[in-house]
Amino acid sequence: MLNSSRIQEKIDNKTKPLGSLGYLEEIALKICKIQNTLTPNVDKGCILVYGGDHGISNEGTSCYPQAVTKQMFYNFVTGGAAINVFCNQNELDLKLIDSGVNTLDDPEFNSNKSIISMKIGHGTRNCLEESAMTSKQLEQCFEAGVQIIQNHLSPEAKVVGFGEMGIGNTASSSLIMSRLLDLPISECTGRGTGLNDDQLEKKIKTLKAASEKHPNAYAPMDVLQAFGGFEMAQIVSSILTAHEKRLVILIDGFISSVCLLVAYKIQPEVLKSVLFSHCSNEKAHRKLLDCFDARPVLDLDLRLGEGTGCALAYPIVKAACRFVDEMASFESAKVSKKQ
Amino acid sequence: MLNSSRIQEKIDNKTKPLGSLGYLEEIALKICKIQNTLTPNVDKGCILVYGGDHGISNEGTSCYPQAVTKQMFYNFVTGGAAINVFCNQNELDLKLIDSGVNTLDDPEFNSNKSIISMKIGHGTRNCLEESAMTSKQLEQCFEAGVQIIQNHLSPEAKVVGFGEMGIGNTASSSLIMSRLLDLPISECTGRGTGLNDDQLEKKIKTLKAASEKHPNAYAPMDVLQAFGGFEMAQIVSSILTAHEKRLVILIDGFISSVCLLVAYKIQPEVLKSVLFSHCSNEKAHRKLLDCFDARPVLDLDLRLGEGTGCALAYPIVKAACRFVDEMASFESAKVSKKQ
Repeated sequence: MLNSSRIQEKIDNKTKPLGSLGYLEEIALKICKIQNTLTPNVDKGCILVYGGDHGISNEGTSCYPQAVTKQMFYNFVTGGAAINVFCNQNELDLKLIDSGVNTLDDPEFNSNKSIISMKIGHGTRNCLEESAMTSKQLEQCFEAGVQIIQNHLSPEAKVVGFGEMGIGNTASSSLIMSRLLDLPISECTGRGTGLNDDQLEKKIKTLKAASEKHPNAYAPMDVLQAFGGFEMAQIVSSILTAHEKRLVILIDGFISSVCLLVAYKIQPEVLKSVLFSHCSNEKAHRKLLDCFDARPVLDLDLRLGEGTGCALAYPIVKAACRFVDEMASFESAKVSKKQ
Repeated sequence: MLNSSRIQEKIDNKTKPLGSLGYLEEIALKICKIQNTLTPNVDKGCILVYGGDHGISNEGTSCYPQAVTKQMFYNFVTGGAAINVFCNQNELDLKLIDSGVNTLDDPEFNSNKSIISMKIGHGTRNCLEESAMTSKQLEQCFEAGVQIIQNHLSPEAKVVGFGEMGIGNTASSSLIMSRLLDLPISECTGRGTGLNDDQLEKKIKTLKAASEKHPNAYAPMDVLQAFGGFEMAQIVSSILTAHEKRLVILIDGFISSVCLLVAYKIQPEVLKSVLFSHCSNEKAHRKLLDCFDARPVLDLDLRLGEGTGCALAYPIVKAACRFVDEMASFESAKVSKKQ
């Protein structure tokens, strides 16, 4: 295993004042350690967008109807969404995964060749009434999460960003965060796609009722089963698999960070592979980042999901690798060192 | 002139929750207004790095010897500096300008074809003893600044980032900021390339003495002449010219921001063309950004100069244009709008 001080020495010998690339130097050090190399490389990257619907989304916790999950997947396929634009710009491979989009009214969706089908069901059950998924479904999600990383990433991909699309999944995320961090629902709940004050109050009330319905779910897997998100459970599994494969993991916004929280509760070591792309405008995200003592790469008040924060942070992460690889040293450039 | 509400309407009709691209949407709106278009474009960009030496740098205000300015210019030419790496990565054109590098010991420097010679002198005079430049030299700097924008940018460049290299130019910048904002020297002075506590104390003492030497310099041009920086005076002029040409202006770190401050005191309208790339780790930069009520694109504790912050922020600025150009609308993608 490469010694941190050898990496730091290489960074410090670059033609720049000591430490003057700031947080970029910390990112570089982290990636060198993940990749166990003095020549870090994230030139090939991939954004994974997992889609799923949520039984609770019919309870008025979101501004948009459930159908938008499916509609946005078609938008991803035809290249019209924000994540398409940012992946194209930054030469990121984009993979679309149907973890559990409700497409009961649209049999053709399942045969769309641009979408990787890992469908567990047509949306989860309503966690106000019962657990969002069965234990069997949770198991299937974990198998799918492994497969996605093992079989669907291009072999050259060194960095993977975790995005999602699912109307209702901020609700699911708030429930999971509240339970795993033992925080009140109100501190874990935000406006999602744009609720007003009254709607936010109603969302908090609904989520409190949902939380009370599952008083015994405390273990990470139980919490995931109770409050669900097929897409979220698959992301948790994929994060754990990506960590095992020593990939650099980019976390996106609130939902992606909650998935990391579950993964972390299962395997704390996973944090060694993680960079936080950005701090979202969704209220609870800052609190969650603070719990991880995390420094996000960007802070642009994004709250879109889809992996957009990962795609936007990617050039910064790439720059951190490239300066280590490509800058001259004081010796090679014949520049005088500090007096 | 295009109405802001027409631009906002286009942004709001993109397939994303209202406002969910956060600060990216504000950047997009600003660039649409600068370019007076609904299809903003910064696909071609240029970073200008102005180099100059400073008479005051021999007074122990910097960790590095004056020779490093010249040495770093050779490093830029051979592609080994941070700014080379980031420009290559992000397909930015890089132009090197000798505004006043001390190359008395190196006659070959002036004939280097990779460097645009706008040399006013071999470094400024020591502002502890007299004004850093003559009024004639200041005038020459302003002529050069115009020429650089008029004749040396590629005609397709829509965005220009202002970087610098000059041992001693944080000292110059602190003096100018202190005088133009009527703030004590100590609040405008930081560790530059890495001074320790004792050295910082000495720097502040030296700068106080330099400031007292020029009690009557208050007008922006007088302040610039007194405390100098040939590279800084040329940047001021180039910023004003870039604004007139309706280019998108990227400001880099502390020194670049002080140049903007001088330009702003001459022509306050210039702020309409400006984006602040990042907040530097140099202590006074945050204060200066606050004076402009500025929101920097990045906050990575960089303190390298060379335009590195501009080059790193550029992909974010580009993303702001591209989402406006390329994302589908709710109508075109057949996605349901907010309930």
